[in-house]
Amino acid sequence: MAEQLFTYSQLRNFSTTVFKAIGCPDDQAELASEVLVRADLRGIDSHGVARLSGYVRLWEAKRINHAPDIKVVHETPSTAVVDGDMGLGLVVAPFAMKVAIEKARQVGTGWVSVRNSNHFGIAGHHAMMALEENMIGMAMTNASPLVAPVHSIERLLGTNPICVAIPAGSQPPFVADFATTTAANGKLEILQRKNQDAPEGWIQKSDGSVSTNPHELKSGGALIPLGSDREHGSHKGYCLGAWVDIFSAVLSGANYGPWVPPFVSFLAPPADPVGKGIGHFFGAMRVDAFRPVAEFKDHMDNWINRFRSAKPVSPEEKVLIPGDPEREAEHYRIDNGIPLNEKVVEDLMELGKRYSISL
Amino acid sequence: MAEQLFTYSQLRNFSTTVFKAIGCPDDQAELASEVLVRADLRGIDSHGVARLSGYVRLWEAKRINHAPDIKVVHETPSTAVVDGDMGLGLVVAPFAMKVAIEKARQVGTGWVSVRNSNHFGIAGHHAMMALEENMIGMAMTNASPLVAPVHSIERLLGTNPICVAIPAGSQPPFVADFATTTAANGKLEILQRKNQDAPEGWIQKSDGSVSTNPHELKSGGALIPLGSDREHGSHKGYCLGAWVDIFSAVLSGANYGPWVPPFVSFLAPPADPVGKGIGHFFGAMRVDAFRPVAEFKDHMDNWINRFRSAKPVSPEEKVLIPGDPEREAEHYRIDNGIPLNEKVVEDLMELGKRYSISL
Repeated sequence: MAEQLFTYSQLRNFSTTVFKAIGCPDDQAELASEVLVRADLRGIDSHGVARLSGYVRLWEAKRINHAPDIKVVHETPSTAVVDGDMGLGLVVAPFAMKVAIEKARQVGTGWVSVRNSNHFGIAGHHAMMALEENMIGMAMTNASPLVAPVHSIERLLGTNPICVAIPAGSQPPFVADFATTTAANGKLEILQRKNQDAPEGWIQKSDGSVSTNPHELKSGGALIPLGSDREHGSHKGYCLGAWVDIFSAVLSGANYGPWVPPFVSFLAPPADPVGKGIGHFFGAMRVDAFRPVAEFKDHMDNWINRFRSAKPVSPEEKVLIPGDPEREAEHYRIDNGIPLNEKVVEDLMELGKRYSISL
Repeated sequence: MAEQLFTYSQLRNFSTTVFKAIGCPDDQAELASEVLVRADLRGIDSHGVARLSGYVRLWEAKRINHAPDIKVVHETPSTAVVDGDMGLGLVVAPFAMKVAIEKARQVGTGWVSVRNSNHFGIAGHHAMMALEENMIGMAMTNASPLVAPVHSIERLLGTNPICVAIPAGSQPPFVADFATTTAANGKLEILQRKNQDAPEGWIQKSDGSVSTNPHELKSGGALIPLGSDREHGSHKGYCLGAWVDIFSAVLSGANYGPWVPPFVSFLAPPADPVGKGIGHFFGAMRVDAFRPVAEFKDHMDNWINRFRSAKPVSPEEKVLIPGDPEREAEHYRIDNGIPLNEKVVEDLMELGKRYSISL
């Protein structure tokens, strides 16, 4: 599978120009492209520029508002509900996270549930906004239904990711960012491109039986919650995905479960919505609302050092700290460029042609 | 395996009397026994009266303070740190959850990290305290290290459970309460009693290879994070367990990772503690800090009804809502009694003899 290398600023500039071309105000176009390309930088290729044309098609289908009036519609000292006015999730999410951070500054913690939004890129970007404030950050979102709860043949949940970002001292921060399914949809896309089968436990057929076909979702199959099967705890993965769905959407007034509108423009949103757009949930907790920052960071360093130096099963595979792989990808790709799959490059070229922008 | 039936009040009275016998003040003895026997009632037999003699032995070893001065040692409008003064976790946890609920009443949410505590029974009891206040409740705790992070042969984490309890309207509440490992330690104890092997993916040997021996932990083996192996997402289970550990202990000043003191009195606590006792973390969020309660509850009912009516893989196994099995056990056992394994009964008889209490 041929790949082509691009610099970070090439992809940033290209994306910014595309967002401006569809009418986004300059500051929103800059922010959206920053969040989007951060995914490519951190090695989460499925959530980066590979999705750019998807956002554009949603805008063409009038399912994204390019100049939204994002606002707080309800609040208490430590909480808020934000209405994203159908804006790009890439822009709505940082707005909401800032509200959470400001509330944490005032009363120790801030918790924001968001409705009327769209796909927000990688959860990690938003949760990590808290780190420079010496806060712990959290971000979750619901998503189009691709996941079957335990015992169900119907797809009722999205891959509903959770990110928890925790600052450390001399060590890099702890950043856990993961889909609540056994495998994220992006993992299937990689197998599809490589013409490889999926391991058992990732996917089920439309009748609920085992599948290893990475194209199975097109035939009514479903992703499986983290745990793979009941005996290995898939009811826990189902609990996690459901939790994210409820905090993101039932608290805010967004669509939940099977009513979450699809990200792809060729699938129509459900005709009987139970809320507005998709939902997110953000949290920020000031470290010093619990303990002096220096003391906390010393202990985080100690935690990280102890886990990193754990005796490994094999000397070739060290014990990692959540966030290590993404941070290493980020450093490597800043220096060496971001590799894009040829299909993604074609897709971007096509977009560039339409808007007379060169990549 | 012979079982004997007991009524709820038999076990409540017995436990209360034992806690009083070791010197607990009356109100603490009542509360501790309420929390403890709630586990038996909800079918989580590993966390109920089966542990009573364990608490007593920890008290005999002077590792539990029977008359603790539990207090808030630091706070902001939405947060607090509670020092449990080495008290029974069964008593410290409800104290801390009440602090979280009171803060939520004032500023929308309350978040409490706890140090210097002990085993707190089932997370579900504490999180569910929020429900009658029309709040969402959360509870987590760290625990003795029995779990190996991905790629590690060392045990660095506990089974670190999470509970999220969410009120509904005409439907019973959503209560997800689960260990962040593929299988909880209680599941191994059941297999040990039945002389059965464990499925692959629950346990590893001391060299990190696959084991199906439920006694493996006695030979240096370890439980595996939710996901079972790297290909099926065990790095996500590791993230969850680590998250619980940090929120419970690094935020509060309790022991974390491999420094968490063991629950069993025959194992000495680490000689080089990094904090005080074990740690917990609690949260309470007022529903109306986000959305009017009636509106929220209507949508929760809709969420629950939709998921409960999902097309099942097989008509014999319906799709469940988190909390269904425990609630059904509770109803059944209130009416029909609580079955106790003969070894547990012997253990209680022994305790009763020591303190001249009849079961």
